Amino acid sequence: MRQSEKGLLLIVSGPAGVGKGTVNAELIKRHPEIRMSVSATTRKPRPGEIDGIHYFFKTQAEFEQMISENAFLEYMHVFGMNYYGTPKQFVVNELNQGHHVILEIDVQGARKVKEVFPEAIRIFIAPPSMAALKERLVKRGTETPEAIETRTKTAFAEMRAMPECDYLVINDDLNEAIAQMEAIVAAEMCSVAHNETVINTFLGGIEEC
Amino acid sequence: MRQSEKGLLLIVSGPAGVGKGTVNAELIKRHPEIRMSVSATTRKPRPGEIDGIHYFFKTQAEFEQMISENAFLEYMHVFGMNYYGTPKQFVVNELNQGHHVILEIDVQGARKVKEVFPEAIRIFIAPPSMAALKERLVKRGTETPEAIETRTKTAFAEMRAMPECDYLVINDDLNEAIAQMEAIVAAEMCSVAHNETVINTFLGGIEEC
Repeated sequence: MRQSEKGLLLIVSGPAGVGKGTVNAELIKRHPEIRMSVSATTRKPRPGEIDGIHYFFKTQAEFEQMISENAFLEYMHVFGMNYYGTPKQFVVNELNQGHHVILEIDVQGARKVKEVFPEAIRIFIAPPSMAALKERLVKRGTETPEAIETRTKTAFAEMRAMPECDYLVINDDLNEAIAQMEAIVAAEMCSVAHNETVINTFLGGIEEC
Repeated sequence: MRQSEKGLLLIVSGPAGVGKGTVNAELIKRHPEIRMSVSATTRKPRPGEIDGIHYFFKTQAEFEQMISENAFLEYMHVFGMNYYGTPKQFVVNELNQGHHVILEIDVQGARKVKEVFPEAIRIFIAPPSMAALKERLVKRGTETPEAIETRTKTAFAEMRAMPECDYLVINDDLNEAIAQMEAIVAAEMCSVAHNETVINTFLGGIEEC
C-alpha cells in the first residue's frame, strides 16, 4: 500500500517584500508536481500576459456568472473596479491528478479558502526580523510617505495573521526556506488526516481476519 | 530571527514486526541531534546491557519512589512483575538542549504521554499491507500457535490506533521511511505551535512601531 496520492492545497501568505513570490517560483521550478493556482480577473491583459497561464481573463459578465455558479474558492473586488478570484475547478483538477497547488493569497482570501477547503495547509512566509521587513517596505520604490505607510499597515495586518497559520517559514536564506517548504509538503503527505482512505483500508483488513 | 531551537518529542508506535526499531536506529545513526529515550526498569540487566544507555536499572523501591515523585511520563507493570517507565527528566533535558527525543512505546504509553505532553508528535509506522504484517508475525519465531495468536491480537490492537496518530509512515522501503521521518521532524520544527515564542517576538515588534 502507498500513502495517499492526492495532492495538497498550500495557501502561502506573508507580507509584501518578504520574497514569497521568489520562494514559490523556485519551488515550482524544482518540483514539477507543484503548481501555482491561476487566478481569474476582469482586468485587461498586460503585454506578454497569456490567458490560462498568468490569469484566466474574463469579462465582468463571465466573472459574475462564475460567482453565481459558486465557481470560486474565493474572490474579491480590488478598488471597486476589477474582480480577482481563485477558480475552484482548476485547483480540484490539479489535486485529483496528484499535483500540489500553491495559492499565493492574502489573509482575507486565505480565511475564505479554509472555510470551503478545511484541509488546506496555511504556510506563512516571514521576514528574518521586523527591522528587515521595515527596511524592505521603505526601500521598495520611490513612492510618497503615504504610499509607504499604507503598504506598511497592510504588511503588519498580514503579520498579525501568523498565529492562525499551520507553518512558519522564515525567509532568511532562499535555499533553506525552500527546503522547509519541501519538508512541509513531504510531511503533510504522511499526515493521518491526508491518509484517511489508506488507514480505512488497513482497518478494514483487520476486520477481515 | 531563527525558528524555535527547542527539540521535538516524537512518539513512535506500530505493531511488532513492522521494523520501527530499525527505522529509529538508522535515524539516530544519521542524525546526532535525534536521541532515543532511555527507559527505566526494575528487571535485572542482561549481559552487555549498560545502565543509562540501554536502560536506567532501578530497584523496586527506587522505581516506586520515582512514581511518588511524579518522575515518569508514563510507566507500566509487565506481567505484574517488573516496572517499565519513561523518566521525564531525561526527556526534558534533551529537548531543552535542542535534541529531538524518540519514544518507542505502545499505544497505552503513547496516550499517557500525550496527556502530560500534548505537544508530542505521534508517528505510526505501518507495514506495507495487512498481508505483509501477518506474514511477519507468523514467520518471526518457532512459537506455539497460541503465542502467535496473542502477538497477532496485540499487533491488531496497535493498528487500530492509527487514526489517533498525527503521521503515518509506511515502512516498505527503509530509506523512504527514514526520509519521511526526516521530513516530519523538519516540518514540525516550522509548525506555528512549535514557534509560539518566535511569533510573539514578531507580534511584539509590530506593537512597537
